[in-house]
Amino acid sequence: MPTVDRNLPGLEDLEAARARIAAMLLPTPLLPSRSQEAALWLKPENLQRTGSFKFRGAYHKLSRLTPEERARGVVAYSSGNHGQAVACAAALFSCPATIVMPQDAVQEKVDGVLRYGARIVSCEGGSDERRRIAEELAAKEGLAIVPPYDDLDIVLGQASCGLEIARERGEIRQVLVPVGGGGLLSGVALAVRALLPEVRVVGVEPQGADDLHRSFESGAHVRLEHVDTLADGLRTQSVGEVNYAILRAVVDEVVTVSEEEILEGARTLLWTEKLLVEPSGAVAFAAFQSGRVPRDVETAAVLSGGNISAPVLRSLLER
Amino acid sequence: MPTVDRNLPGLEDLEAARARIAAMLLPTPLLPSRSQEAALWLKPENLQRTGSFKFRGAYHKLSRLTPEERARGVVAYSSGNHGQAVACAAALFSCPATIVMPQDAVQEKVDGVLRYGARIVSCEGGSDERRRIAEELAAKEGLAIVPPYDDLDIVLGQASCGLEIARERGEIRQVLVPVGGGGLLSGVALAVRALLPEVRVVGVEPQGADDLHRSFESGAHVRLEHVDTLADGLRTQSVGEVNYAILRAVVDEVVTVSEEEILEGARTLLWTEKLLVEPSGAVAFAAFQSGRVPRDVETAAVLSGGNISAPVLRSLLER
Repeated sequence: MPTVDRNLPGLEDLEAARARIAAMLLPTPLLPSRSQEAALWLKPENLQRTGSFKFRGAYHKLSRLTPEERARGVVAYSSGNHGQAVACAAALFSCPATIVMPQDAVQEKVDGVLRYGARIVSCEGGSDERRRIAEELAAKEGLAIVPPYDDLDIVLGQASCGLEIARERGEIRQVLVPVGGGGLLSGVALAVRALLPEVRVVGVEPQGADDLHRSFESGAHVRLEHVDTLADGLRTQSVGEVNYAILRAVVDEVVTVSEEEILEGARTLLWTEKLLVEPSGAVAFAAFQSGRVPRDVETAAVLSGGNISAPVLRSLLER
Repeated sequence: MPTVDRNLPGLEDLEAARARIAAMLLPTPLLPSRSQEAALWLKPENLQRTGSFKFRGAYHKLSRLTPEERARGVVAYSSGNHGQAVACAAALFSCPATIVMPQDAVQEKVDGVLRYGARIVSCEGGSDERRRIAEELAAKEGLAIVPPYDDLDIVLGQASCGLEIARERGEIRQVLVPVGGGGLLSGVALAVRALLPEVRVVGVEPQGADDLHRSFESGAHVRLEHVDTLADGLRTQSVGEVNYAILRAVVDEVVTVSEEEILEGARTLLWTEKLLVEPSGAVAFAAFQSGRVPRDVETAAVLSGGNISAPVLRSLLER
């Protein structure tokens, strides 16, 4: 178990962040898994506002801006879930929002952003290009950037998910969390380790986007040139700098799952657990189901989101 | 609001039934609806053991048999959800179970029964024929019959669902419940009215199986010759005798929903609420969504089950 650095955010910081956002969160109570014949609890963030955990960090970040900053507006770059979350949080603050999205974004995620009245700027290229355009817009229009993960206020918002898990079920000894940019894992790890120091915290990545796994193996902060996975929310080439420092300090292990294991996980969640979970949201459950982590300790798996596209859902049903 | 008959089961009876089954129930916490822009709470019985509320009544019924009766075994007739529930409850009591099912039963429901080690007897014809065969088996093999709905012990088991709703959210003023044989509606109505006397309790039927609606209109216990609805769990020709007496006393109104409203309800539950709910389980939500009941009072809708077949789910996605 890693030692916790004294410079990391402490329980008071996590509690303060949670207090700023608690009234806006929807309840996502731990649900006992019916499919695993093992002590597994599901943390259903697909039931969170906007259909993913991303609302926690986005709303917290906006709550930390000044009223003047919010009046000028915010800009975010996102393949989808973060965009919906920022659009929704901005609407709750009556603050203008612009979301830079890839041209091939899932239609359901585009609709999700439009529903909250945000402006969409479409862009070719990868996440680096989206970030560049957002920074350009921020400079030109005086907007505040709401980054998707590499930001301490975002991490502190996501930590509320970990506080809830640890408070609701103190018997848990292992927590499994999907890893994209590492914001959720950073926040959850800080929170559960603050309340339950004996808990094993495990990050889960798709094999085709295993940058953090490689970083943990090599000891160096790895950046992948190419990522390839159905889990569109986890296609980051590297976790954030802020997050990497936290993750090294409070995460025990990073495991990977295959595309087939992710699909099988999403199928089981749908047919047996009766929950609609997107592939990115199913990786932690998939790691447990396929035995990539110990199955004999009481475990919580974060189902990080449920914004699946119709074609992907149809492909799940074809098997 | 109907007056409550003193001969009806009282709160003590309902509490005693709940105490017998509580340890075996899974939590199905009320979830706030994200789709309706109104104060609507979802009671997700699709997350209950065996994927429907039916486990509550089945387990309670078995708990009321003598050990000798349970040792000889039980028999049930069902198109699916009640069969799975009896099979699961019997397995928990280590008691042999036989389920009489229609030959065209949904494969997922057949698999659900087999998973718990029960014997299946397939049968042609409708629910009357299944009942006759179950009674024959009971007589020949000394089995105890576990009826699907028309039985006070079944009703008392289902009532636990209503106690949970009323205890969790005392502000609720309207409860919407699907109606097939009337066991769930009877139990939930007794329970919520016992704890929250001002609550309006509304039964919801498909237009193609509207026997209780017609009964309430005409004042006579109506039995339909033909029923026609996608909601396979609600294809009963008539509510039970025991139930009808209770329903007349404690239910305020019965409304109906069209097949298109049911499908639209199931779609919204899947895409926006991220919950897999079968058509029968979606009718109460559909009544709220389509404005068949007042939308300006705090409401709970029971999602009674989630055991949908793959073809029906695929048909939901085609629109």
